[in-house]
Amino acid sequence: MRTLPSRQVVLARHIPGLPGPEHFRVESVEVREPGEKELRVRTLFVSVDPGTLARLGGVDTYAPALAPGEVIASAAVGEVLESRHPRYAAGDVVVGAWGWREHAVVGSQGLRKVEPGPPESYSAELGVLGIPGLTAWFGILELGRPQAGETVLVSSAAGGVGSIAGQLAKRQGARVVGIAGGPAKCRWVLESLGFDAVIDHRAEADLEAAIRRACPGGVHVYLDNVGGSTLDATLACMASKGRVVVSGLVADYGVPPSQRAGLRNTPYLITHRLRMEGFVVFDYAARFDVARAELRQGLRDGTLHHREHVVEGLASAPAAFAGLFRGENFGRALVRVA
Amino acid sequence: MRTLPSRQVVLARHIPGLPGPEHFRVESVEVREPGEKELRVRTLFVSVDPGTLARLGGVDTYAPALAPGEVIASAAVGEVLESRHPRYAAGDVVVGAWGWREHAVVGSQGLRKVEPGPPESYSAELGVLGIPGLTAWFGILELGRPQAGETVLVSSAAGGVGSIAGQLAKRQGARVVGIAGGPAKCRWVLESLGFDAVIDHRAEADLEAAIRRACPGGVHVYLDNVGGSTLDATLACMASKGRVVVSGLVADYGVPPSQRAGLRNTPYLITHRLRMEGFVVFDYAARFDVARAELRQGLRDGTLHHREHVVEGLASAPAAFAGLFRGENFGRALVRVA
Repeated sequence: MRTLPSRQVVLARHIPGLPGPEHFRVESVEVREPGEKELRVRTLFVSVDPGTLARLGGVDTYAPALAPGEVIASAAVGEVLESRHPRYAAGDVVVGAWGWREHAVVGSQGLRKVEPGPPESYSAELGVLGIPGLTAWFGILELGRPQAGETVLVSSAAGGVGSIAGQLAKRQGARVVGIAGGPAKCRWVLESLGFDAVIDHRAEADLEAAIRRACPGGVHVYLDNVGGSTLDATLACMASKGRVVVSGLVADYGVPPSQRAGLRNTPYLITHRLRMEGFVVFDYAARFDVARAELRQGLRDGTLHHREHVVEGLASAPAAFAGLFRGENFGRALVRVA
Repeated sequence: MRTLPSRQVVLARHIPGLPGPEHFRVESVEVREPGEKELRVRTLFVSVDPGTLARLGGVDTYAPALAPGEVIASAAVGEVLESRHPRYAAGDVVVGAWGWREHAVVGSQGLRKVEPGPPESYSAELGVLGIPGLTAWFGILELGRPQAGETVLVSSAAGGVGSIAGQLAKRQGARVVGIAGGPAKCRWVLESLGFDAVIDHRAEADLEAAIRRACPGGVHVYLDNVGGSTLDATLACMASKGRVVVSGLVADYGVPPSQRAGLRNTPYLITHRLRMEGFVVFDYAARFDVARAELRQGLRDGTLHHREHVVEGLASAPAAFAGLFRGENFGRALVRVA
């Protein structure tokens, strides 16, 4: 064994607002041999996650900020090239969090081995079977808890979290309404995912009125991936005792507080007895295996649909990341690295 | 028996923003004799409640909007003059919701008889033993649920809800910090109520920094009576898994949504896993008696302190109401009618 020539994407400088190409740099590196209890992996796919933006702006959140020069953090799935860990062997496929690198040396902590399958099956480990799918699962089943007959509204309904969340809510017997941008996404949400109704936010001048029309009995559970004016409009449309589950606030990321839309419909919190709750899915890690097994079963029996927005090559990752904040991805955003 | 000459305060016209004298009218009326199962009462005290503003602006909330010409809604305590109801007799003192009237004919629904006492004792039935005290009770013990050692922040700490909420949180072993306006209120909160610290929002240019200094370990429970920029500043200071209990949003009442401060610190909902919940205390009516008995015991044994801001005469009620939105009341706002 010897060092392997590889490439990685690092933070060129902190991102004060929205990301652009100037904030990233592709580096050539030599990846060392694995030490004791380590593996050397070849990356197959990495994830592109809007929630990473705060860390790239130098802000500590539930994960620490990144410093310039550090490799961009993400989930990753890859093939083990060499293993010096007894539980892993060359040829195994593993999921971890080694970020935007073509090759990496990793320890076993936080690593998960996945069942062998065709190469294209591994991307799902970062999407419907990864953090987005698990976020949908715990957001709907643990926090929102829709009852049969209730109305569930999901923003970014064609995205990695929203698409799964809506389908899980349907399984609970809820009426499910999505918000998505543009006719292609809206059609997919209705026809492939089986949502009961969809709102094209690009076609609606008055989003609040559109939500009221689509949810005449009010919204019992809102799973929010967007925040901003979409969240504010929805607050005015909630049913009494409604639950707002905040899983993402893409509209607020990278925007200084003074320039955010701001929530103004707060009096509805009282008059409609609303509960609004943010969460970080890693808090539910002890139950990931149970949730993932059920999600996997849904994929196998064809009852759970998902969609991936795959761009090719590690060097495409920064542009895909920037596109998230313009709603350019249609499905879970991933990069095929090899 | 015959009709009784009386006075009442009615809504002159809907209040689009903040209240002024032009929105109210004092009327002379003749109050009829009670019918079967009715009582005629002479009012002792009525309440002055910021939460009524929406209804006076023509907005249905959990209670319907008032039309011009209708008597202003409020809690009231009064003496029974004549009774045609078997459970009540002349001389009884009752609490009800007959609003800003010197005399009223009322049915028994929603009526509560109180134990005889000196005349000045009856005001507490509308304050610490009424909706404000019960709001504090359920807000702290049912929604906020502070644990020993946690930090509880209370806005309007010298008000009818905040003053009781802070004392109840102290009983749970929490460290309690208040926000109040001006040195007199702050001194009372510290010295008489026994809060651990107090922030004078009028003396602080940067409220967020002041909250951080007073709550170095973060805020575990925030009981909010104010909303607006105070709520937004507090969101940035919450501890992980913190609970924001929204019992009132005085800063947002009477302000058009586009002119409200707006909540911009929403990303903390996710990063700090915050729960924000609004409530209406009437939802807990089945347990009012239990809560009220414990609050009453606290008054009797001198462990629970309260303060009333009493203005004299029904005609003073509109000005007292307007003063609520400028923080002029120091304690629970009431009108002594007779």
